[in-house]
Amino acid sequence: MTKPDSYQIQPIGFIRSSLKNRSEAPRQGAEGAPNAFLDIFPEYSDGLDRVAVGDEIIVITWLHRARREVLKVHPRGVGSNPLTGVFLTRSPDRPNPLGLHRVKVLEIDQGRLTIGPIEAIDGTPVIDIKAVIAE
Amino acid sequence: MTKPDSYQIQPIGFIRSSLKNRSEAPRQGAEGAPNAFLDIFPEYSDGLDRVAVGDEIIVITWLHRARREVLKVHPRGVGSNPLTGVFLTRSPDRPNPLGLHRVKVLEIDQGRLTIGPIEAIDGTPVIDIKAVIAE
Repeated sequence: MTKPDSYQIQPIGFIRSSLKNRSEAPRQGAEGAPNAFLDIFPEYSDGLDRVAVGDEIIVITWLHRARREVLKVHPRGVGSNPLTGVFLTRSPDRPNPLGLHRVKVLEIDQGRLTIGPIEAIDGTPVIDIKAVIAE
Repeated sequence: MTKPDSYQIQPIGFIRSSLKNRSEAPRQGAEGAPNAFLDIFPEYSDGLDRVAVGDEIIVITWLHRARREVLKVHPRGVGSNPLTGVFLTRSPDRPNPLGLHRVKVLEIDQGRLTIGPIEAIDGTPVIDIKAVIAE
């Protein structure tokens, strides 16, 4: 295999949350995470056309505080869990630190969505949003 | 909001598929897509540690043939579906063209996984793999 190109990701918006750092964030949204704002940059707001309150969406974030050189972790940070490849976990530490968050749209105010619950910390870049489909 | 940094994504591997171009690919894996190989570069193979045949995983691809300037589409390419923001769809055309694929691991041969079904075409870069969790 020849070594591939790398690709440039441009954030489409940001998470604004009461969670200010990783240590206070729950591991998953369903584990007591708060609601948060998703602020979309004006040039991408057409991409939200027809999004409605009550919709379930998948928010994909760039976990900018993650360590990209990590390939194995103790799942959920519990030392007694055996070392496991990051690709079989939801660890934020991984070569391309993408976060996947299934959330509900609670409010829409122009380029600002209120969504939740979500464990992403304040200032986390958002890179994509997708419809939920049956899989 | 100040304009954010962009981020560099480095593929961790590639899809090898009998699907050679977008026009022959089904829209979702469950719509008649084939199985495919996922070839991981040697430097990332530790990230697969403990992955087993039968596991369900989420493969995240970079849809390198997508058009990144598209913000609205007719969902599923059907003209009678009203124009909709790409963030409420699974269109491959979107600012950061990430593909989300929930697949089953069918075979493991060192750095090559056989996975499926998956609608990604041959040569699609893989950028992340995650555990499926109840959400």
